[in-house]
Amino acid sequence: MSVSTAAADRSVCSPLPVLGRDVTVPLVTGGEVTYAALDYAASAPALQRVWDDVAAYAPYYGSVHRGAGYLSQLSTDLFENARGTIAEFLDCRPEDQVIFTRSTTDSLNLLAAALPADCRVFVFETEHHAALLPWPEDRVTCLDAPRTPQEAVRTLERALADRAPHGPALVCVTGASNVTGELWPVRELAAAAHAHGARIVLDAAQLAPHHPVSVRGLDVDWVAFSGHKLYAPFGSGVLAGRADWLRRAEPYLAGGGASRKVTRLQDGAVRVDWHESAARHEAGSPNVIGAYSIASACTALTQAGFDTLVAREQQLIRRIREGLAEVPEARVLSLFGDDAPRVGVISFVVEGWNSSHFAAALSAEYGIGVRDGLFCAHPLVRLLLGGDPQSQGECGAPEAAPGETSLNAIRVSFGAGTPDEHIERFLAAVRELVENGAKWEYRTEGGRCVPAV
Amino acid sequence: MSVSTAAADRSVCSPLPVLGRDVTVPLVTGGEVTYAALDYAASAPALQRVWDDVAAYAPYYGSVHRGAGYLSQLSTDLFENARGTIAEFLDCRPEDQVIFTRSTTDSLNLLAAALPADCRVFVFETEHHAALLPWPEDRVTCLDAPRTPQEAVRTLERALADRAPHGPALVCVTGASNVTGELWPVRELAAAAHAHGARIVLDAAQLAPHHPVSVRGLDVDWVAFSGHKLYAPFGSGVLAGRADWLRRAEPYLAGGGASRKVTRLQDGAVRVDWHESAARHEAGSPNVIGAYSIASACTALTQAGFDTLVAREQQLIRRIREGLAEVPEARVLSLFGDDAPRVGVISFVVEGWNSSHFAAALSAEYGIGVRDGLFCAHPLVRLLLGGDPQSQGECGAPEAAPGETSLNAIRVSFGAGTPDEHIERFLAAVRELVENGAKWEYRTEGGRCVPAV
Repeated sequence: MSVSTAAADRSVCSPLPVLGRDVTVPLVTGGEVTYAALDYAASAPALQRVWDDVAAYAPYYGSVHRGAGYLSQLSTDLFENARGTIAEFLDCRPEDQVIFTRSTTDSLNLLAAALPADCRVFVFETEHHAALLPWPEDRVTCLDAPRTPQEAVRTLERALADRAPHGPALVCVTGASNVTGELWPVRELAAAAHAHGARIVLDAAQLAPHHPVSVRGLDVDWVAFSGHKLYAPFGSGVLAGRADWLRRAEPYLAGGGASRKVTRLQDGAVRVDWHESAARHEAGSPNVIGAYSIASACTALTQAGFDTLVAREQQLIRRIREGLAEVPEARVLSLFGDDAPRVGVISFVVEGWNSSHFAAALSAEYGIGVRDGLFCAHPLVRLLLGGDPQSQGECGAPEAAPGETSLNAIRVSFGAGTPDEHIERFLAAVRELVENGAKWEYRTEGGRCVPAV
Repeated sequence: MSVSTAAADRSVCSPLPVLGRDVTVPLVTGGEVTYAALDYAASAPALQRVWDDVAAYAPYYGSVHRGAGYLSQLSTDLFENARGTIAEFLDCRPEDQVIFTRSTTDSLNLLAAALPADCRVFVFETEHHAALLPWPEDRVTCLDAPRTPQEAVRTLERALADRAPHGPALVCVTGASNVTGELWPVRELAAAAHAHGARIVLDAAQLAPHHPVSVRGLDVDWVAFSGHKLYAPFGSGVLAGRADWLRRAEPYLAGGGASRKVTRLQDGAVRVDWHESAARHEAGSPNVIGAYSIASACTALTQAGFDTLVAREQQLIRRIREGLAEVPEARVLSLFGDDAPRVGVISFVVEGWNSSHFAAALSAEYGIGVRDGLFCAHPLVRLLLGGDPQSQGECGAPEAAPGETSLNAIRVSFGAGTPDEHIERFLAAVRELVENGAKWEYRTEGGRCVPAV
């Protein structure tokens, strides 16, 4: 099946209304244009529905848990019910726990802090730093990048089989790459993990906003994701899944809310009985608005028809990939090849261009917001760029002089709120920049590439 | 000076507009009434100004740091500039760092994770659990509750002088008690700490919303506070102060944003160069709205005239204390006595009443939201209640049958958004309940005390 016209793109459904859809930004060449937010993989705009829910709730905000007032009880119910909404959205098992964190990074750091003492961790070098770095250095095995999903499964199976001693193990894997958008064979990796007596956590930061996730169907032990990529940018994330390791672990944060009873002993020491529920790892006043906003986003995506949104996004992906394929200077980064299923996250480089300059021109001359860099997945991006994986590339500074082909990449990403026009404008801008060059000069200032005045 | 009439109370200034000021709640006795939020010490309502700022910004929300688009750069500037606004609000030293966390609890856990290896910690048993519990068990000295500010200083001096070995030390102390509202002699404790070669962190969760805090004037090394108590309930908190320990510590969370450069080595291991700035401890996408909302609250309090707000709050405190003093059955909890300076946080018990039932009646019959329990400061509340400090009291369940005097307490707390009417309604309700009893029956259900149907 091939869908290549903009008219056909519009046939599935309309984009969901998001905040900022009418915001205009100035162009360096004069005038203003509506902003095209094409950096969803970093942070998506809030769904209008999520914002409306938060705005309707905000006057009713109250202190949760031990507050005796009406708004406290309403807020407590809202907060606790959010867990159920999210568990349903993720198709969790009845006994699974939903713990509120601040982000995917925080969720995976929490799980890392809850590992059994002798647990080894297996992670591919292709992961986002949030999934690559939280694990105890002396207990992590970093696996080479596979070039097919099947190779990923074989690599994992081999590593798990070879582990010595054959003790507890955790596999951490992304559902969709934050660089290539490509889907990983999560169900197969989960089966391999379980067959070898290991557990698996799914980094769904890039998957959950783009695709229904079924904890039960994929048979993963945990799933982690962030609100701010799921159209709910209010500072919360989620770790959902099995309770046993977490119940036995030291509390992630020590403080109120996690402590059930605190006693000063005769000898002067302090004794603490900790909660065993999700609260054990949620010390401090919960971010009620953050948790509620995620539940609101889950409900909004479900009610809009997630499958329809997926179908529409797939049309946008095809359109953008076909468009880029018509620009010979543009090279799309891929680990698993053209046929791999993917979400709306596409990274590329343009021959003869510094990616930071290219991204700056897309912003200043076309009002398009993309991202340039190594996307907090340094080993993967360096591998895909073909550079020396050991020496190049830092976050935070353009990597090559104007005119030199870049040592970093450009990433365009989109989702449920993206209108067709943003995709068409992006493709037209890429063609124009490649054919005619930028209309303006750019320079680097404080790590940012900006129009020269 | 004594101000005792409601008319005089209104003379200083008006309360600041907050969200929810017009929300009505149902009464169990029939009808509705505007909600009186008197649980500010747990979570304050959002300032209208903070909400308006957040609402105005929300459409411009964009991915921060490496995003090349206009809204990304605007959001990055907003996020980074928030640090400066907060540093100014706290009167920080030029070299101080402002790190965004999720709450005071998180801020103190971060500092605990950044302690030098041989650092001892000194903390009074009177602290909130957030300040009492994060420290390494084998390196913390818990100090007995002092009954005067002077005794606090002497107790600390003695403990610091006696420490062996005389290595690095940290003192953690609250600025204002979350139970009694009483101010602690922070400047004097800081002087004592520094005289004995120790450092000091100020838990300003209850101080910052009620009183200007000067890091420089108090000469504290760090200060921690939460947005949700400072009229900015969007999931962020702050740790501000010296950078040295934090720069040398392992990153609080491992992930993107904190990592400057990540490399896969020849031997398969992963090498990470971490940032040395605040970003070192802020891995994951920052909560931009949370950070911005705190900066907005700081600006709003400053522009409203913080000293005037303090003066008005002091009038409300006097009014409520005088009112409670007229009810012989009510006993206000105090560590430092009647003359101690304090903020708008007052805990009390009522003879012959279970505090949970009393609080439930205040809510159901008067629309007043207070809090009952041990306020995440179990050792302090048990001490003040005169109970056995070792056996009684858990968070989460009423502590005595109806008719028995309670083993927990009622806390009423207020701030910049509290109208005089809430205070007067509260005092009238206390008098009525004590004189006539509740109009309704209450029972305990799922840890909550609720009207029996």
